[in-house]
Amino acid sequence: VWDPGGVSQDMEKERETLQAWKERVEHELDVVVAFWLEHSHDQEHGGFFTCLGRDGQVYDDLKYVWLQGRQVWMYCRLYRKLERFRRPELLNAAKAGGEFLLRYARVAPPAKKCAFVLTRDGRPVKVQRTIFSECFYTMAMNELWRVTGDAQYQSEAVEMMDQIVHWVREDPSGLGRPQLPGAPAAESMAAPMMLLSLVEQLGEADDELAGSYAELGDWCARRILRHVQRGGQAVLENVSEDGEGLSGCLGRHQNPGHALEAGWFLLRHAVRRGDPKLRAHVIDKFLLLPFRSGWDPDHGGLFYFQDADGLCPTQLEWAMKLWWPHSEAMIAFLMGYSESGDSALLNIFYQVAEYTFRQVSAASWSQRCGGDRRHGTPPPSPPRRTCSLSRSESSWKSRPWCPLFSQESGPCPTGAYIWCWWDRL
Amino acid sequence: VWDPGGVSQDMEKERETLQAWKERVEHELDVVVAFWLEHSHDQEHGGFFTCLGRDGQVYDDLKYVWLQGRQVWMYCRLYRKLERFRRPELLNAAKAGGEFLLRYARVAPPAKKCAFVLTRDGRPVKVQRTIFSECFYTMAMNELWRVTGDAQYQSEAVEMMDQIVHWVREDPSGLGRPQLPGAPAAESMAAPMMLLSLVEQLGEADDELAGSYAELGDWCARRILRHVQRGGQAVLENVSEDGEGLSGCLGRHQNPGHALEAGWFLLRHAVRRGDPKLRAHVIDKFLLLPFRSGWDPDHGGLFYFQDADGLCPTQLEWAMKLWWPHSEAMIAFLMGYSESGDSALLNIFYQVAEYTFRQVSAASWSQRCGGDRRHGTPPPSPPRRTCSLSRSESSWKSRPWCPLFSQESGPCPTGAYIWCWWDRL
Repeated sequence: VWDPGGVSQDMEKERETLQAWKERVEHELDVVVAFWLEHSHDQEHGGFFTCLGRDGQVYDDLKYVWLQGRQVWMYCRLYRKLERFRRPELLNAAKAGGEFLLRYARVAPPAKKCAFVLTRDGRPVKVQRTIFSECFYTMAMNELWRVTGDAQYQSEAVEMMDQIVHWVREDPSGLGRPQLPGAPAAESMAAPMMLLSLVEQLGEADDELAGSYAELGDWCARRILRHVQRGGQAVLENVSEDGEGLSGCLGRHQNPGHALEAGWFLLRHAVRRGDPKLRAHVIDKFLLLPFRSGWDPDHGGLFYFQDADGLCPTQLEWAMKLWWPHSEAMIAFLMGYSESGDSALLNIFYQVAEYTFRQVSAASWSQRCGGDRRHGTPPPSPPRRTCSLSRSESSWKSRPWCPLFSQESGPCPTGAYIWCWWDRL
Repeated sequence: VWDPGGVSQDMEKERETLQAWKERVEHELDVVVAFWLEHSHDQEHGGFFTCLGRDGQVYDDLKYVWLQGRQVWMYCRLYRKLERFRRPELLNAAKAGGEFLLRYARVAPPAKKCAFVLTRDGRPVKVQRTIFSECFYTMAMNELWRVTGDAQYQSEAVEMMDQIVHWVREDPSGLGRPQLPGAPAAESMAAPMMLLSLVEQLGEADDELAGSYAELGDWCARRILRHVQRGGQAVLENVSEDGEGLSGCLGRHQNPGHALEAGWFLLRHAVRRGDPKLRAHVIDKFLLLPFRSGWDPDHGGLFYFQDADGLCPTQLEWAMKLWWPHSEAMIAFLMGYSESGDSALLNIFYQVAEYTFRQVSAASWSQRCGGDRRHGTPPPSPPRRTCSLSRSESSWKSRPWCPLFSQESGPCPTGAYIWCWWDRL
C-alpha cells in the first residue's frame, strides 16, 4: 500500500509520544531538584545530607562521598545546561559541596585515597579498597571547573584521574587490598566501565585531554567487551584477568542494570570513535541481550541479579526490582534509538518507562522501602509507625553514575537521571 | 471448679503434643544429616563443600571457615550425644574436617588470624577483620577433643580462645581493622554473644576452664545486657563503648533473631549462675520483647531487620523471613519454658514451630531462594531453568551458631538446629 500520508501520520504520532515523555521527565526532574535543594544542604558543616526520608527528614547524617560527588556534578550540569536551573543557589551549593570534598574526602592527604563515608563534620568512617569514591570526586571537580572556570578544580580532577589510572593499570597496591593466594585474579566490569565514563567526562570540554585519553578509552572498551562470554550469549560481571570465564558464583554473576549501563557508556564511545560496527555490537550484546534475559516475563521489570546458569543467585535481594537498573535501561534504549533509528529500541524504552513510572509513582513507597519485590505488590507496612525512606547501601553501592542521588530518597530520581541524555534525541 | 482430673488430662495432652514435635524434629535431623553425609564431603582435598543445591549439587566449591567449623562441631556433638549417630563415618569426617582446619584455616601461621573463606584446596580467598572464623574454629577443636580425647585439639581450642579474648578485651589491632577518626566507637552484640557461647562450650567438660572463664562469662553477660535500651523497650544491635545508644541507622538497627539468640545464650548463663532474677529479666527482654516487636502481625514470621524508630531499615532484605531467626526463636522459647515452666512460652514455641515447619516444608523452595518474602507467597521462579539452592552470604554471615550448616542448603537444618537443646525439656 502506497501511503506516504500514513507514514507521516505515524511519525507525527511518534513525535507526540516522545514529546509527552520528555515533559513527564522534565516534571520529575523539577520535583527532584526542588526536594534536594530544600532538604539536603547542610548549612552548618557544608556538604550534603544524603540519607533523606520521603518527607525530607535526615534519617542519618552520614555523608557518602559518592553522593557528595554526584550532587556537585548534577548541580553543575543542570546549571550549565538548562536555562531554568541557571540559578545562583545551585552554583553556590555545588561550590560548597566541592569545598567539602576538597577538605575532607581524602583520608590522609596529600595521598589521594578517599573515604567511602564521612561523619557530618567530615571525619572518615569507612574506606573502600576500590576506585569509586575517587571517580565521583573527579567528576565533581571536572564539572566545577567547567562551570566556574577555576583551574584549581581541573587540576584536582586530572591529578585524581592520573591516580585512578595508575591504580587500575599499573599498581593497585595503593588501594590497600591484601594479596591472598586464593583470591581469584578477577576483573569486575565496574572498573573499566567507570574509567570509560571518566574518559568521556574529562574529554568533553578539552580536546587535548580527549586526545591523551583516547588510548585509555579504547583499552576500557576492550576490557568491557571481554565480559561478553559463552559464545556471545551472556554478559558476566566478572572475568579472569585474561578475559576468560571464572568458576563458581563469582563467575556466573550477572547484573542486568549494570550491563545496560556499560552499554550506554560503550555506545557513547562507539559514536565518539565513529565506529558503526562497534555500535551495532553494543546494541546487540549490552542492550538487547541483558534486556531479554533480565526482564521478568511474568511481572515486568528488571531483576537485580541473575546467575548465568539459571541457578538461584545467592543475594537475597536478587529478584527485587530497583529503580536504578530501569533508569539505565531507559537511557540506554533512548540512546540506542537515537543513534540507530531502530524503532524496536524505542519500543523497549516505552516498555521500561511505562513500567518504571507506574511502579515509581503508584508504588513509590514500596520501591523506596525495598518492598517492590518481583510482583510489584504493595510493600510490607513497616513494623511500627511510618515507614520513612532509606538509602539502601547494598543497592546504590553498585551505582557509579546516578546523578541524583541515593536510591530511595525523596521523589524518585529517575527523571533527573535520564534528563541529561534527552537532548540527544 | 475443682477438677484435678481435667488438669491431669491437660498435662497428658501437652506431653503428647511435645512428644509429637520432638519426633518431627528428630526426623528433620535424620534427613539433614543424611543429606550432608552424602553430598558435602570433599574426598579429594578434605574438608566440606558448603554450597550445595537442594539436589546435592556443589554450586560453588569455596569453603567457608565458619561452616567447616560448624560441621565438625555438629558431627562430634551428634556422635557424642545420640546413639544412632555413633557411627565411624561421622567421627572420621569430623576428624578430616578438623585436619583441614588445622592445615589451612590460619592465613599466616603461627599467627592465629583465620580466613573467612578458602579455595577448595585451602588457599585463603578472603579474611574478615572480626573474631568469628576463629570462634567456630575453637568450637570445632573443643568438640574434637571431647570426642577423641586427643589433647592437641584442646590446646588448639584454648590457645585460640585466649587470642580471641585478647582481641576483644585487650587489643583489637591484630584483627587488622584500620582506626579511622570518624568510625563510631560502637560495640555490636555479636562479639560478647559469641564469646559467651564459647565460655559455655569450653566450660562444659572442664571444671577448671569453667572456673577460669567465670569472670569472662559475667563480663559477656553484662555487655550483652547493655543492648537493652530505651527504657527497656528495645534491644539494639549496636551501642557505644559506654553502653549508650548511638545515632543514625547503626544505632537504630535491630535484628530480632539475633536478640533471641543472645537470649538463649543468656538464659543458659543465668541457669549456670543460679540467678533466677537474671533468668526472668532475660525472658522478658530477650525473648518476649523481640518476639513481640519482631513477629509480623499480618503474615506471621520474624522480620530479618527492624529500625527502632519504626523507620524503614536500609537493608533491602529487611522484611524477608529467613529460617535461622525462627530456629533461634524455637530454641529460646523451648528453653525458656523448660527453665520457667511458663506455658505462655511453650505456646510461642508452638506458634513459631508451626509457622516455620509449614513454610519450610510447603515453601522450602521459596525460603532457600530468598523468595520467602513477607507473605510466604510462592517464590519467584528462576529466570531460566531450575532454581538451585544457594547459600546466602548476607544472611548466614550473621549466624554465629547454626550447626548444620549454610542457610539454604538441602533439607532445612531447623531440625538439626534445635535438636541439641531438646533433651533439656
